[in-house]
Amino acid sequence: MSKAVPQPVTQLIDALSRLPGVGPKTASRLTYYLLRAPDELSQTLSSAISDLKTKTRYCSVCYNITEDDPCAICSDSGRDATQIVVVEEPLDVLAVERTGAFQGRYHVLHGAISPVDGIGPEALRIRELVRRVEAGGVLEVIVATNPGMEGDATSMYLQRQLAPTGVKLTRLARGLPTGGDLEYVDSVTLLRALQGRNEL
Amino acid sequence: MSKAVPQPVTQLIDALSRLPGVGPKTASRLTYYLLRAPDELSQTLSSAISDLKTKTRYCSVCYNITEDDPCAICSDSGRDATQIVVVEEPLDVLAVERTGAFQGRYHVLHGAISPVDGIGPEALRIRELVRRVEAGGVLEVIVATNPGMEGDATSMYLQRQLAPTGVKLTRLARGLPTGGDLEYVDSVTLLRALQGRNEL
Repeated sequence: MSKAVPQPVTQLIDALSRLPGVGPKTASRLTYYLLRAPDELSQTLSSAISDLKTKTRYCSVCYNITEDDPCAICSDSGRDATQIVVVEEPLDVLAVERTGAFQGRYHVLHGAISPVDGIGPEALRIRELVRRVEAGGVLEVIVATNPGMEGDATSMYLQRQLAPTGVKLTRLARGLPTGGDLEYVDSVTLLRALQGRNEL
Repeated sequence: MSKAVPQPVTQLIDALSRLPGVGPKTASRLTYYLLRAPDELSQTLSSAISDLKTKTRYCSVCYNITEDDPCAICSDSGRDATQIVVVEEPLDVLAVERTGAFQGRYHVLHGAISPVDGIGPEALRIRELVRRVEAGGVLEVIVATNPGMEGDATSMYLQRQLAPTGVKLTRLARGLPTGGDLEYVDSVTLLRALQGRNEL
Protein backbone atom coordinates (compact mmCIF):
# COMPACT_ATOMS: atom_id res chain seq x y z
CA MET A 1 0.00 0.00 0.00
CA SER A 2 0.97 3.62 -0.45
CA LYS A 3 3.16 5.26 2.13
CA ALA A 4 0.21 7.49 2.97
CA VAL A 5 -0.90 4.55 5.13
CA PRO A 6 0.86 4.08 8.46
CA GLN A 7 1.91 0.53 9.35
CA PRO A 8 -0.53 -0.02 12.24
CA VAL A 9 -3.34 0.77 9.80
CA THR A 10 -2.02 -1.63 7.14
CA GLN A 11 -1.56 -4.33 9.77
CA LEU A 12 -5.15 -4.13 10.96
CA ILE A 13 -6.49 -4.03 7.39
CA ASP A 14 -4.44 -7.16 6.62
CA ALA A 15 -5.62 -8.95 9.76
CA LEU A 16 -9.29 -8.09 9.18
CA SER A 17 -9.02 -9.21 5.55
CA ARG A 18 -8.28 -12.72 6.81
CA LEU A 19 -11.81 -12.98 8.22
CA PRO A 20 -14.41 -14.72 6.06
CA GLY A 21 -16.57 -12.34 4.06
CA VAL A 22 -14.30 -9.38 4.80
CA GLY A 23 -12.59 -8.07 1.69
CA PRO A 24 -9.85 -5.42 1.59
CA LYS A 25 -12.45 -2.65 1.13
CA THR A 26 -14.52 -3.65 4.16
CA ALA A 27 -11.34 -4.17 6.17
CA SER A 28 -10.13 -0.67 5.44
CA ARG A 29 -13.56 0.84 6.08
CA LEU A 30 -13.69 -0.90 9.49
CA THR A 31 -10.13 0.17 10.29
CA TYR A 32 -10.77 3.83 9.53
CA TYR A 33 -14.02 3.61 11.47
CA LEU A 34 -12.09 2.36 14.51
CA LEU A 35 -9.61 5.22 14.11
CA ARG A 36 -12.44 7.72 14.43
CA ALA A 37 -14.40 5.83 17.08
CA PRO A 38 -13.77 6.32 20.83
CA ASP A 39 -10.68 4.48 22.18
CA GLU A 40 -13.02 2.45 24.36
CA LEU A 41 -14.36 0.54 21.33
CA SER A 42 -10.93 -0.58 20.13
CA GLN A 43 -10.00 -1.56 23.69
CA THR A 44 -13.20 -3.56 24.19
CA LEU A 45 -12.81 -5.25 20.82
CA SER A 46 -9.14 -6.03 21.29
CA SER A 47 -9.61 -7.61 24.70
CA ALA A 48 -12.80 -9.45 23.68
CA ILE A 49 -10.88 -11.08 20.81
CA SER A 50 -7.99 -12.00 23.03
CA ASP A 51 -10.34 -13.34 25.77
CA LEU A 52 -12.28 -15.40 23.25
CA LYS A 53 -9.60 -18.06 22.99
CA THR A 54 -7.96 -17.73 26.39
CA LYS A 55 -11.18 -17.82 28.43
CA THR A 56 -13.06 -20.53 26.56
CA ARG A 57 -12.50 -24.23 26.09
CA TYR A 58 -14.39 -27.27 24.87
CA CYS A 59 -16.83 -28.95 27.23
CA SER A 60 -15.33 -32.37 28.02
CA VAL A 61 -18.77 -33.95 27.68
CA CYS A 62 -20.40 -32.39 24.60
CA TYR A 63 -17.48 -30.44 23.06
CA ASN A 64 -19.48 -27.24 22.81
CA ILE A 65 -17.59 -24.01 23.50
CA THR A 66 -17.77 -23.13 27.18
CA GLU A 67 -16.24 -21.08 29.96
CA ASP A 68 -16.73 -23.74 32.63
CA ASP A 69 -16.27 -27.45 32.13
CA PRO A 70 -18.73 -29.19 31.93
CA CYS A 71 -20.78 -26.57 30.10
CA ALA A 72 -24.00 -24.97 31.38
CA ILE A 73 -26.19 -27.39 29.46
CA CYS A 74 -24.29 -30.56 30.41
CA SER A 75 -24.26 -29.57 34.08
CA ASP A 76 -27.95 -28.59 34.10
CA SER A 77 -29.72 -31.45 35.89
CA GLY A 78 -33.00 -30.05 34.61
CA ARG A 79 -32.09 -31.13 31.09
CA ASP A 80 -32.89 -34.61 29.83
CA ALA A 81 -29.68 -36.65 29.61
CA THR A 82 -31.38 -39.43 27.66
CA GLN A 83 -31.60 -37.41 24.44
CA ILE A 84 -28.60 -36.07 22.55
CA VAL A 85 -28.81 -33.80 19.51
CA VAL A 86 -25.65 -34.17 17.40
CA VAL A 87 -24.63 -31.04 15.48
CA GLU A 88 -21.69 -30.01 13.32
CA GLU A 89 -20.89 -26.64 14.90
CA PRO A 90 -21.46 -24.71 18.16
CA LEU A 91 -23.68 -22.24 16.27
CA ASP A 92 -26.01 -25.13 15.44
CA VAL A 93 -26.58 -25.64 19.18
CA LEU A 94 -27.90 -22.07 19.34
CA ALA A 95 -30.18 -22.69 16.37
CA VAL A 96 -31.75 -25.70 18.09
CA GLU A 97 -31.95 -23.84 21.43
CA ARG A 98 -33.82 -21.02 19.71
CA THR A 99 -36.67 -23.41 18.80
CA GLY A 100 -37.26 -23.81 22.55
CA ALA A 101 -38.49 -27.33 21.75
CA PHE A 102 -35.54 -29.41 22.92
CA GLN A 103 -34.78 -30.07 26.56
CA GLY A 104 -32.04 -32.67 26.13
CA ARG A 105 -28.27 -32.42 25.72
CA TYR A 106 -25.96 -31.87 22.75
CA HIS A 107 -22.85 -33.23 21.10
CA VAL A 108 -20.78 -31.00 18.83
CA LEU A 109 -18.76 -32.83 16.15
CA HIS A 110 -16.81 -29.74 15.00
CA GLY A 111 -17.30 -30.38 11.33
CA ALA A 112 -18.67 -32.96 8.93
CA ILE A 113 -17.02 -35.74 6.98
CA SER A 114 -15.73 -34.26 3.73
CA PRO A 115 -13.24 -36.31 1.72
CA VAL A 116 -12.82 -33.38 -0.69
CA ASP A 117 -11.50 -31.19 2.15
CA GLY A 118 -9.55 -34.08 3.64
CA ILE A 119 -11.79 -34.25 6.70
CA GLY A 120 -12.24 -37.86 7.77
CA PRO A 121 -14.30 -39.17 10.70
CA GLU A 122 -11.23 -39.23 12.95
CA ALA A 123 -11.02 -35.41 12.71
CA LEU A 124 -14.46 -35.11 14.32
CA ARG A 125 -15.66 -35.80 17.87
CA ILE A 126 -17.33 -39.05 16.79
CA ARG A 127 -15.34 -41.45 18.97
CA GLU A 128 -16.27 -39.27 21.95
CA LEU A 129 -19.96 -39.52 21.03
CA VAL A 130 -19.80 -43.31 20.72
CA ARG A 131 -18.10 -43.53 24.12
CA ARG A 132 -20.75 -41.25 25.60
CA VAL A 133 -23.52 -43.49 24.31
CA GLU A 134 -21.67 -46.64 25.37
CA ALA A 135 -21.39 -45.26 28.89
CA GLY A 136 -25.17 -45.68 29.08
CA GLY A 137 -28.15 -43.54 29.98
CA VAL A 138 -28.70 -42.26 26.45
CA LEU A 139 -31.94 -43.46 24.83
CA GLU A 140 -32.02 -41.40 21.63
CA VAL A 141 -29.42 -39.75 19.43
CA ILE A 142 -30.95 -37.14 17.11
CA VAL A 143 -28.64 -36.46 14.18
CA ALA A 144 -28.88 -32.78 13.24
CA THR A 145 -26.03 -32.50 10.76
CA ASN A 146 -26.62 -30.12 7.84
CA PRO A 147 -28.95 -31.33 5.10
CA GLY A 148 -26.35 -31.80 2.37
CA MET A 149 -23.79 -34.24 1.06
CA GLU A 150 -21.34 -33.85 3.92
CA GLY A 151 -24.01 -33.89 6.60
CA ASP A 152 -25.50 -37.00 4.97
CA ALA A 153 -22.14 -38.77 4.86
CA THR A 154 -21.58 -37.92 8.51
CA SER A 155 -25.04 -39.17 9.39
CA MET A 156 -24.43 -42.48 7.62
CA TYR A 157 -21.11 -42.91 9.38
CA LEU A 158 -22.71 -42.17 12.76
CA GLN A 159 -25.38 -44.75 12.00
CA ARG A 160 -22.73 -47.44 11.43
CA GLN A 161 -20.74 -46.45 14.49
CA LEU A 162 -23.72 -46.29 16.84
CA ALA A 163 -25.58 -49.38 15.58
CA PRO A 164 -23.75 -51.76 17.98
CA THR A 165 -24.87 -49.66 20.98
CA GLY A 166 -28.53 -50.30 20.14
CA VAL A 167 -29.40 -46.64 20.84
CA LYS A 168 -32.42 -45.19 19.01
CA LEU A 169 -31.12 -43.07 16.13
CA THR A 170 -33.21 -40.38 14.44
CA ARG A 171 -32.53 -37.54 12.05
CA LEU A 172 -34.17 -34.13 11.55
CA ALA A 173 -37.01 -34.20 9.03
CA ARG A 174 -36.35 -33.03 5.48
CA GLY A 175 -39.03 -31.18 3.57
CA LEU A 176 -40.37 -27.81 2.55
CA PRO A 177 -39.13 -24.83 4.56
CA THR A 178 -41.95 -22.94 6.25
CA GLY A 179 -42.90 -19.82 4.31
CA GLY A 180 -41.33 -21.19 1.13
CA ASP A 181 -43.10 -21.29 -2.22
CA LEU A 182 -43.46 -24.65 -3.97
CA GLU A 183 -42.72 -22.99 -7.28
CA TYR A 184 -39.29 -21.83 -6.14
CA VAL A 185 -38.26 -24.84 -4.09
CA ASP A 186 -35.33 -26.82 -5.54
CA SER A 187 -36.16 -30.28 -6.82
CA VAL A 188 -34.07 -32.16 -4.26
CA THR A 189 -35.98 -30.49 -1.42
CA LEU A 190 -39.26 -31.22 -3.14
CA LEU A 191 -38.26 -34.85 -3.67
CA ARG A 192 -37.42 -35.18 0.02
CA ALA A 193 -40.73 -33.55 0.94
CA LEU A 194 -42.58 -36.07 -1.25
CA GLN A 195 -40.67 -39.03 0.13
CA GLY A 196 -41.26 -37.89 3.69
CA ARG A 197 -44.96 -37.01 3.22
CA ASN A 198 -47.12 -37.40 6.30
CA GLU A 199 -50.67 -38.69 6.58
CA LEU A 200 -53.22 -35.96 7.29
CA MET B 1 -28.61 -14.86 24.76
CA SER B 2 -29.08 -18.45 25.79
CA LYS B 3 -26.83 -19.94 28.43
CA ALA B 4 -25.48 -22.22 25.69
CA VAL B 5 -23.26 -19.22 24.85
CA PRO B 6 -20.27 -18.58 27.12
CA GLN B 7 -19.69 -14.97 28.15
CA PRO B 8 -16.44 -14.39 26.20
CA VAL B 9 -18.36 -15.34 23.05
CA THR B 10 -21.27 -13.00 23.84
CA GLN B 11 -18.84 -10.20 24.63
CA LEU B 12 -17.08 -10.46 21.28
CA ILE B 13 -20.38 -10.72 19.39
CA ASP B 14 -21.56 -7.56 21.17
CA ALA B 15 -18.32 -5.71 20.45
CA LEU B 16 -18.27 -6.69 16.77
CA SER B 17 -21.94 -5.68 16.41
CA ARG B 18 -20.91 -2.12 17.22
CA LEU B 19 -18.96 -1.91 13.97
CA PRO B 20 -20.73 -0.31 10.99
CA GLY B 21 -22.28 -2.84 8.61
CA VAL B 22 -21.83 -5.69 11.07
CA GLY B 23 -25.14 -7.06 12.32
CA PRO B 24 -25.59 -9.65 15.09
CA LYS B 25 -25.55 -12.49 12.54
CA THR B 26 -22.26 -11.45 10.95
CA ALA B 27 -20.81 -10.77 14.40
CA SER B 28 -21.63 -14.27 15.60
CA ARG B 29 -20.38 -15.84 12.36
CA LEU B 30 -17.05 -14.00 12.74
CA THR B 31 -16.80 -14.93 16.40
CA TYR B 32 -17.35 -18.63 15.78
CA TYR B 33 -14.91 -18.45 12.89
CA LEU B 34 -12.26 -17.04 15.24
CA LEU B 35 -12.97 -19.83 17.71
CA ARG B 36 -12.12 -22.40 15.06
CA ALA B 37 -9.23 -20.46 13.49
CA PRO B 38 -5.64 -20.80 14.74
CA ASP B 39 -4.85 -18.84 17.93
CA GLU B 40 -2.39 -16.81 15.90
CA LEU B 41 -5.22 -15.05 14.02
CA SER B 42 -6.98 -13.85 17.19
CA GLN B 43 -3.66 -12.74 18.64
CA THR B 44 -2.71 -10.82 15.49
CA LEU B 45 -6.15 -9.24 15.27
CA SER B 46 -6.30 -8.32 18.94
CA SER B 47 -2.90 -6.64 18.96
CA ALA B 48 -3.47 -4.94 15.60
CA ILE B 49 -6.66 -3.36 16.97
CA SER B 50 -4.94 -2.27 20.13
CA ASP B 51 -1.91 -0.90 18.22
CA LEU B 52 -4.15 1.00 15.83
CA LYS B 53 -4.90 3.73 18.33
CA THR B 54 -1.83 3.58 20.51
CA LYS B 55 0.71 3.62 17.68
CA THR B 56 -0.89 6.21 15.41
CA ARG B 57 -1.57 9.92 15.74
CA TYR B 58 -2.52 12.87 13.58
CA CYS B 59 0.15 14.55 11.49
CA SER B 60 0.57 18.04 12.96
CA VAL B 61 0.76 19.51 9.46
CA CYS B 62 -1.97 17.79 7.41
CA TYR B 63 -3.90 15.87 10.13
CA ASN B 64 -3.74 12.61 8.24
CA ILE B 65 -3.27 9.46 10.33
CA THR B 66 0.42 8.71 10.78
CA GLU B 67 2.96 6.80 12.82
CA ASP B 68 5.60 9.54 12.64
CA ASP B 69 4.93 13.24 12.88
CA PRO B 70 5.07 14.89 10.36
CA CYS B 71 3.68 12.14 8.12
CA ALA B 72 5.48 10.49 5.24
CA ILE B 73 3.88 12.77 2.66
CA CYS B 74 4.43 16.03 4.57
CA SER B 75 8.08 15.16 5.22
CA ASP B 76 8.71 14.06 1.63
CA SER B 77 10.67 16.93 0.06
CA GLY B 78 9.98 15.39 -3.34
CA ARG B 79 6.33 16.36 -3.05
CA ASP B 80 5.11 19.76 -4.16
CA ALA B 81 4.31 21.90 -1.11
CA THR B 82 2.59 24.58 -3.20
CA GLN B 83 -0.51 22.42 -3.86
CA ILE B 84 -2.82 21.13 -1.13
CA VAL B 85 -5.70 18.75 -1.75
CA VAL B 86 -8.30 19.16 1.03
CA VAL B 87 -10.25 16.00 1.85
CA GLU B 88 -12.82 14.98 4.44
CA GLU B 89 -11.30 11.68 5.61
CA PRO B 90 -7.94 9.85 5.64
CA LEU B 91 -9.37 7.25 3.24
CA ASP B 92 -9.91 10.04 0.70
CA VAL B 93 -6.14 10.66 0.71
CA LEU B 94 -5.67 7.05 -0.42
CA ALA B 95 -8.25 7.49 -3.17
CA VAL B 96 -6.39 10.51 -4.57
CA GLU B 97 -3.02 8.76 -4.15
CA ARG B 98 -4.32 5.82 -6.18
CA THR B 99 -4.85 8.09 -9.20
CA GLY B 100 -1.08 8.60 -9.20
CA ALA B 101 -1.79 12.04 -10.69
CA PHE B 102 -1.14 14.27 -7.68
CA GLN B 103 2.31 15.08 -6.38
CA GLY B 104 1.38 17.75 -3.85
CA ARG B 105 0.37 17.60 -0.18
CA TYR B 106 -2.91 17.03 1.65
CA HIS B 107 -5.06 18.43 4.41
CA VAL B 108 -7.56 16.19 6.18
CA LEU B 109 -10.58 17.99 7.67
CA HIS B 110 -11.94 14.93 9.52
CA GLY B 111 -15.51 15.41 8.44
CA ALA B 112 -17.73 17.86 6.63
CA ILE B 113 -20.00 20.63 7.84
CA SER B 114 -23.36 19.08 8.66
CA PRO B 115 -25.79 21.15 10.72
CA VAL B 116 -28.15 18.14 10.87
CA ASP B 117 -25.51 16.09 12.69
CA GLY B 118 -24.43 19.09 14.75
CA ILE B 119 -21.06 19.31 13.01
CA GLY B 120 -20.04 22.93 12.61
CA PRO B 121 -16.85 24.28 10.98
CA GLU B 122 -15.12 24.52 14.37
CA ALA B 123 -15.28 20.69 14.68
CA LEU B 124 -13.14 20.34 11.55
CA ARG B 125 -9.46 21.13 10.89
CA ILE B 126 -10.36 24.27 8.94
CA ARG B 127 -8.60 26.79 11.17
CA GLU B 128 -5.44 24.72 10.80
CA LEU B 129 -5.77 24.82 7.00
CA VAL B 130 -6.23 28.58 6.97
CA ARG B 131 -3.14 28.98 9.17
CA ARG B 132 -1.19 26.65 6.89
CA VAL B 133 -2.09 28.77 3.86
CA GLU B 134 -1.43 32.04 5.74
CA ALA B 135 2.05 30.76 6.63
CA GLY B 136 2.83 31.07 2.91
CA GLY B 137 4.23 28.85 0.20
CA VAL B 138 0.88 27.44 -0.86
CA LEU B 139 -0.24 28.48 -4.36
CA GLU B 140 -3.33 26.32 -4.86
CA VAL B 141 -5.87 24.67 -2.58
CA ILE B 142 -7.83 21.93 -4.36
CA VAL B 143 -11.06 21.23 -2.51
CA ALA B 144 -11.85 17.50 -2.76
CA THR B 145 -14.74 17.24 -0.33
CA ASN B 146 -17.45 14.74 -1.27
CA PRO B 147 -19.84 15.77 -4.06
CA GLY B 148 -22.94 16.21 -1.90
CA MET B 149 -24.72 18.71 0.31
CA GLU B 150 -22.27 18.51 3.18
CA GLY B 151 -19.21 18.56 0.96
CA ASP B 152 -20.67 21.54 -0.88
CA ALA B 153 -21.36 23.41 2.35
CA THR B 154 -17.82 22.72 3.51
CA SER B 155 -16.45 23.87 0.18
CA MET B 156 -18.39 27.13 0.39
CA TYR B 157 -17.19 27.75 3.93
CA LEU B 158 -13.58 27.07 2.91
CA GLN B 159 -13.99 29.54 0.05
CA ARG B 160 -15.07 32.29 2.46
CA GLN B 161 -12.31 31.49 4.95
CA LEU B 162 -9.53 31.29 2.39
CA ALA B 163 -10.57 34.28 0.24
CA PRO B 164 -8.55 36.81 2.35
CA THR B 165 -5.35 34.79 1.79
CA GLY B 166 -5.64 35.27 -1.98
CA VAL B 167 -4.69 31.62 -2.61
CA LYS B 168 -5.97 30.00 -5.82
CA LEU B 169 -8.95 27.82 -4.91
CA THR B 170 -10.21 24.99 -7.12
CA ARG B 171 -12.59 22.09 -6.73
CA LEU B 172 -12.73 18.63 -8.28
CA ALA B 173 -14.80 18.51 -11.49
CA ARG B 174 -18.37 17.25 -11.32
CA GLY B 175 -19.82 15.23 -14.18
CA LEU B 176 -20.52 11.78 -15.51
CA PRO B 177 -18.65 8.94 -13.86
CA THR B 178 -16.49 6.98 -16.33
CA GLY B 179 -18.18 3.77 -17.41
CA GLY B 180 -21.59 5.08 -16.38
CA ASP B 181 -24.64 4.98 -18.62
CA LEU B 182 -26.40 8.27 -19.40
CA GLU B 183 -29.75 6.53 -19.10
CA TYR B 184 -29.12 5.56 -15.49
CA VAL B 185 -27.33 8.66 -14.30
CA ASP B 186 -29.25 10.68 -11.70
CA SER B 187 -30.51 14.06 -12.87
CA VAL B 188 -28.35 16.11 -10.49
CA THR B 189 -25.20 14.48 -11.88
CA LEU B 190 -26.44 15.04 -15.42
CA LEU B 191 -27.24 18.67 -14.64
CA ARG B 192 -23.72 19.16 -13.27
CA ALA B 193 -22.25 17.46 -16.33
CA LEU B 194 -24.23 19.80 -18.57
CA GLN B 195 -23.24 22.89 -16.60
CA GLY B 196 -19.61 21.87 -16.59
CA ARG B 197 -19.46 20.85 -20.26
CA ASN B 198 -16.10 21.26 -21.95
CA GLU B 199 -15.32 22.42 -25.46
CA LEU B 200 -14.16 19.62 -27.76
